[in-house]
Amino acid sequence: MAKDKKLVEAITSMEEDFAQWYTDVVKKAELITYSSVKGCMIIRPAGYAIWENIQQELDRRFKETGVENVYMPMFIPESLLEKEKDHVEGFAPEVAWVTHGGLNELQERLCIRPTSETLFCDFYKDIVQSYRDLPKVYNQWCSVVRWEKETRPFLRSREFLWQEGHTAHATAEEAEERTVQMLNLYADFCEEVLAMPVVRGQKTEKEKFAGAEATYTIEALMHDGKALQSGTSHNFGNGFAKAFGIQYTDRDNQLQYVYQTSWGMTTRLIGAIIMVHGDDSGLVLPPRVAPVQVMVIPVQQQKEGVLDTARDVCERLGKVCRAKLDASEKSPGWKFSEQEMRGIPVRVELGPRDIAEGKCVVVRRDTREKIEVALQELETKIPELLETIQKEMFERAKAHRDAHIWDAHDYEELKGIAAEKTGFVRGMWCGEEACEDKIKEEFAMTSRCMPFHDQERIAETCVCCGKPAHKLVYWGKAY
Amino acid sequence: MAKDKKLVEAITSMEEDFAQWYTDVVKKAELITYSSVKGCMIIRPAGYAIWENIQQELDRRFKETGVENVYMPMFIPESLLEKEKDHVEGFAPEVAWVTHGGLNELQERLCIRPTSETLFCDFYKDIVQSYRDLPKVYNQWCSVVRWEKETRPFLRSREFLWQEGHTAHATAEEAEERTVQMLNLYADFCEEVLAMPVVRGQKTEKEKFAGAEATYTIEALMHDGKALQSGTSHNFGNGFAKAFGIQYTDRDNQLQYVYQTSWGMTTRLIGAIIMVHGDDSGLVLPPRVAPVQVMVIPVQQQKEGVLDTARDVCERLGKVCRAKLDASEKSPGWKFSEQEMRGIPVRVELGPRDIAEGKCVVVRRDTREKIEVALQELETKIPELLETIQKEMFERAKAHRDAHIWDAHDYEELKGIAAEKTGFVRGMWCGEEACEDKIKEEFAMTSRCMPFHDQERIAETCVCCGKPAHKLVYWGKAY
Repeated sequence: MAKDKKLVEAITSMEEDFAQWYTDVVKKAELITYSSVKGCMIIRPAGYAIWENIQQELDRRFKETGVENVYMPMFIPESLLEKEKDHVEGFAPEVAWVTHGGLNELQERLCIRPTSETLFCDFYKDIVQSYRDLPKVYNQWCSVVRWEKETRPFLRSREFLWQEGHTAHATAEEAEERTVQMLNLYADFCEEVLAMPVVRGQKTEKEKFAGAEATYTIEALMHDGKALQSGTSHNFGNGFAKAFGIQYTDRDNQLQYVYQTSWGMTTRLIGAIIMVHGDDSGLVLPPRVAPVQVMVIPVQQQKEGVLDTARDVCERLGKVCRAKLDASEKSPGWKFSEQEMRGIPVRVELGPRDIAEGKCVVVRRDTREKIEVALQELETKIPELLETIQKEMFERAKAHRDAHIWDAHDYEELKGIAAEKTGFVRGMWCGEEACEDKIKEEFAMTSRCMPFHDQERIAETCVCCGKPAHKLVYWGKAY
Repeated sequence: MAKDKKLVEAITSMEEDFAQWYTDVVKKAELITYSSVKGCMIIRPAGYAIWENIQQELDRRFKETGVENVYMPMFIPESLLEKEKDHVEGFAPEVAWVTHGGLNELQERLCIRPTSETLFCDFYKDIVQSYRDLPKVYNQWCSVVRWEKETRPFLRSREFLWQEGHTAHATAEEAEERTVQMLNLYADFCEEVLAMPVVRGQKTEKEKFAGAEATYTIEALMHDGKALQSGTSHNFGNGFAKAFGIQYTDRDNQLQYVYQTSWGMTTRLIGAIIMVHGDDSGLVLPPRVAPVQVMVIPVQQQKEGVLDTARDVCERLGKVCRAKLDASEKSPGWKFSEQEMRGIPVRVELGPRDIAEGKCVVVRRDTREKIEVALQELETKIPELLETIQKEMFERAKAHRDAHIWDAHDYEELKGIAAEKTGFVRGMWCGEEACEDKIKEEFAMTSRCMPFHDQERIAETCVCCGKPAHKLVYWGKAY
């Protein structure tokens, strides 16, 4: 029994040290291992399978909106990166440089893509000639590199996996429509699949993407009250098109610049899942994204008929959900701890007495609730239960999020909230970067977004400087 | 009509210049575009969709054999690459080196993975302790970089996409079994999905992978009579384990080294599809790997009811195969050329008279055969036709391959075949590298493999030196 508890005891509690708890979960649930390259991680099968489910579901949703996948080179020549002024300023300080190919020094050094706007622009310049060639709605799944100083598994690493969509349109309106469409797709995906409520909104000038006219974002609240930017969608207007010379002939035979967007989501989402749903026993995965949804665990498996019945149950469940059998030699208690640590949404406990009575014990990972279910009803009850868990996990996360949104009407109130509370702070903003800087400096909070669906005027004046203010901003400490 | 023909006229004929024909197809079918980085290509939607189908089918087959996916960093520290002597000698001359991260020079330079044996070894060293941790059967989908001097789209580029499987086993037997299993999986995939017959066999010492004990390969014959190595599977024995110190405690509590394998397939397969099945009108895709299997092309689409019927037909077909409608403003002739160029296996032509008669004209891409099909029978006839095409494409490719295998019993005969024929040459080999070198020098042919299923002794002596020989080798000019 001492051995059974070891797996769990090794985790720091969330309340005690959230950062350490996070690291413990990431390692103990075998999501990642550190590699011999500083700041780069190895994504292990349990972690990568989550990413595969995210990919599959996002890709399906993308394609429904007409997205086509492509693959661009991982290298960007230095001269190409430099073509758009704001963009290069934003990224040049944090890229990795290739200077040698084989035994020879390169004539021009190449950076490893931190993002691929410049490559797509160079490509679109060649393949877009006429209005008939538009729109181009391309995406790629790949890894990118940003030479970060401080790294944390999934949240910030020197190499990470993502998708980056890049589109070109005939009109500004169409580009804006696509930018918003993809942000909403991201938000729906987070809420429906990851059971993670998000605030949809626009970034301020200070926080927007290097080279963009407007950046839209979804912001989620982690269990420790910090915000996590979970997906962004950028409208570039025709700025990049002008820098790269991407023009098309319109129906009136006039040369026009295209309007562009880009949008991305990353393996950071796995970090979000951990920090929104996890608990002191480890990971808690929403059923829709869980690689294994049900773990069947036999009790007293050496007794006649137990393993056979467990196999049969697992096979039947396999037809209605992603089920797995743990028939290893470990003790049931150890298996329970492992299943909990790995966040598998449901376990089915099955011993000789259960079998004799034609039932089993079903345990929810999220609430620990135990339910007796007749063996013959498993195929209907388990999928229902998975749906219930999915729904309730979202509701709980939303209730937690909503309970951690505070309104600050003036500076004093902001100061009080910053000192006593965690979560999002809603506060009016005058539009000056100086106020953003001050709030960041004083309270380590940044403007997360100006929400789309919530432009209530909670005050007439800026929460920082007291001047007239029209914009409601969500402020928060962020990862 | 002149305009309609332009698309086709732009292709060089295969007989005239096969290399130029290949380049023309690759570009005109919009599979790739050259990028601004020398030797790197942009894989366009039509090309990437083929890769997605390859990935999906291979991944499904992998997982059925217990493979789990992971993701390793793209960087390998120089000291790690150097740990296995043969391996570093094989790869160091052709890797790209990262020397700077952001504004700083790195303390140790990092190469971009040309392959990831060293990273997996470093990983397995950490996570394998006991026999209970074995086997590890991991795979990753990623891009790799090899700084090639001469490059050709899909066949040889500085960056390419692939999967690399890396496994660790308790015994040499189990490693050998996995090596062979994966080679057979590759061969079956090529034959069943890509309609491409392959020769399965073992590489000679000279041709085997850097660091491997044995390399198995599948070799396919292209339309011009050249061979293409299409997939390889390596048995490392415990050589890497010794170099990296990957040990486990066995059931008797003794420390043992693990036995390892690796196996990979790449975007080169797309080049193989082109060169095995293509013709002077462009690409010809086997139905199972074709992103679009049926293109519905309306004729006189401005006439009432034509587009509506075409839409209806496409929707109905969409339930039984991957169907698409070309409702653009181009002429039918132009659309036919495009569909042919892109290798879409079947087109459905549908005009007002057809509709009145309740039928349509179905045209096979591979044979140009035209078949009248009643509209109401499309859902049954088209899937049958796609299966027929798949089967016959394989049979034709096999007949072509078999008609290009020549037996050489001695040096004179080899010389004659090399001068007059193209294809594989079967010839006995004494086992000496000197003979391989001589055949390469004289006839530009390399030993492709020693076939598994065909160790007939066609002579008693080496085709090169005349000394006693026991091994039958397939020789050929190769890409």
